[in-house]
Amino acid sequence: MPSGYKVAVAGVTGVVGTEMVKILGERDFPVKELVPLASQRSMDKSIEFKGDSIPVQVLNEHSFKGVDIGFFFAGEAMSREFIPIAVRNGCVVIDNTSAFRMEGDVPLVVPEVNSHRIKEHKGIIANPSCSTIQMVVVLNPIHKQARIRRIVVSTYQAVSGTGIKAMDELTEQVRDLFNFREPKISVYPHQIAFNAIPHIDEFVENAYTAEEMKIADETRKILEDDSIRICATTVRVPVFYGHSEAVNIETEKRLSPDEVRKILMDAPGVIVEDDPLHNKYPLAIYAAGKDECFVGRIREDISVDNGIAMWIVSDNIRKGAALNAVQIAELL
Amino acid sequence: MPSGYKVAVAGVTGVVGTEMVKILGERDFPVKELVPLASQRSMDKSIEFKGDSIPVQVLNEHSFKGVDIGFFFAGEAMSREFIPIAVRNGCVVIDNTSAFRMEGDVPLVVPEVNSHRIKEHKGIIANPSCSTIQMVVVLNPIHKQARIRRIVVSTYQAVSGTGIKAMDELTEQVRDLFNFREPKISVYPHQIAFNAIPHIDEFVENAYTAEEMKIADETRKILEDDSIRICATTVRVPVFYGHSEAVNIETEKRLSPDEVRKILMDAPGVIVEDDPLHNKYPLAIYAAGKDECFVGRIREDISVDNGIAMWIVSDNIRKGAALNAVQIAELL
Repeated sequence: MPSGYKVAVAGVTGVVGTEMVKILGERDFPVKELVPLASQRSMDKSIEFKGDSIPVQVLNEHSFKGVDIGFFFAGEAMSREFIPIAVRNGCVVIDNTSAFRMEGDVPLVVPEVNSHRIKEHKGIIANPSCSTIQMVVVLNPIHKQARIRRIVVSTYQAVSGTGIKAMDELTEQVRDLFNFREPKISVYPHQIAFNAIPHIDEFVENAYTAEEMKIADETRKILEDDSIRICATTVRVPVFYGHSEAVNIETEKRLSPDEVRKILMDAPGVIVEDDPLHNKYPLAIYAAGKDECFVGRIREDISVDNGIAMWIVSDNIRKGAALNAVQIAELL
Repeated sequence: MPSGYKVAVAGVTGVVGTEMVKILGERDFPVKELVPLASQRSMDKSIEFKGDSIPVQVLNEHSFKGVDIGFFFAGEAMSREFIPIAVRNGCVVIDNTSAFRMEGDVPLVVPEVNSHRIKEHKGIIANPSCSTIQMVVVLNPIHKQARIRRIVVSTYQAVSGTGIKAMDELTEQVRDLFNFREPKISVYPHQIAFNAIPHIDEFVENAYTAEEMKIADETRKILEDDSIRICATTVRVPVFYGHSEAVNIETEKRLSPDEVRKILMDAPGVIVEDDPLHNKYPLAIYAAGKDECFVGRIREDISVDNGIAMWIVSDNIRKGAALNAVQIAELL
């Protein structure tokens, strides 16, 4: 019998769950037994892991007997229902949903930024939202050097962040439009093909979306600085993989663009791609499938003193979700 | 012989030129004679205007004899070469390129904002860039009430802004990708299909693009306030028609989102679409073909005192170029 951990993946048939299983294999995570979990409607499916085909099991209250580590990618409702059961079974859970992220005793972890928080867990460690992860990986080393006071971020988010159905919807809408048929709208409130929709997640009472407030709240929690003021506008664009972000920061201490580049070149998990005269800057299509966060277009924000503008891109499914979760588990 | 003006349109076969001829007809502009001008390679083409088919003529130094009004949509080099000739022929030119926009004696006009400048012209009136026009139409009434001190804008710009070849390139790249062929790249430095490219126009010495600096410089000139500080990030997205902009402003006088909505509901050329709980906000696909600038997602910028965030969308070919030029001519 192989040594290692019994690992459950809830939501294993989704975009992130599928990538998760791939990454567990790629990184040779010490898996003794893999328990692929999903809802009833995926019961005819199997997943491939290290040459084996493992039938998907239904996620229920009996799923976590003897499970050491549980990854949750099955949506907030499933997390709320089954994570407490998993924890009672002695399982350590890494949750990708927003269900427990802002709770005081749940570490919200991006390994490059705050791995020291992992050991404080009481059974649950939360994975931040994809748009937060890539931004804090880049901003944390700047914050440590110059103290960030304010962040304005506008996002260009890929449809894979919503799931397989959204990717299919973009594909189908493009096909319909190219064949002079009326595109069908179901996952998003409006046509996403050849459009930009400033609406991700539900609207909350201050006219922001939940996604915009998550970026603000999670960033403050991860950077451990409640005084940073953050305004996000989150926008869905017709891109399959890779979130892009236009980020303007203001710092207490002035940093030149060269100083920022130097700090980021030494930063873990960051690749500086910043040679605009040779058309080099981060792009969603190139970040797709990569593990790092890419940053470029680093320049003085000419509208404010002590300001820096930049462009941050990462694979929202890998670093934005599955990879970050595996990195947390590796550190456990 | 009909009364009216002899009107030349240089660059008549391009995206904006085509729309221009359509708008001259739609708005019943008093055209006595239309002179469609283009380069040698369009010489086999004709344009349709009010039921007539008019052969395209080659743009040269003899094109402007007796021409009252000349619209230039043929690129900066053509503007630099032929506008001085047109002006010497007594023609009043409305130029859509950036060739003369920042010159002191050339009014840079958005009729809703600064039509009073038109009469100061010395033969040339400049049409601002598309991304500037839609922003100043919305920001001018706010600036008048509360004095804008700073603007941070990130754009989501349509490929039609680049021209017909760029629209064809997006179409072909999508077809290639859906047929498992390598997409061809020629107009843009990178694949635009399913991507977001933070690079519009050339890079200039401060690591901004010319497009980003145009937004800053033109906005200050049109709003007649050199003290407004502006930082733009301009991004091309796979959208055919309609530029979208995430705009964060800071004002001297505090305005609530409700006050901003009220100001904008009375503003010329502006339509407020701001009911997020019913999924109502401006969208590129709905703005296409419309004359107005649409604004929504109006909310407090929670990262600063006296800040407002909003989402501005307009048809970059109509209000962003052709329509604005016709509106200027109507006021002449």
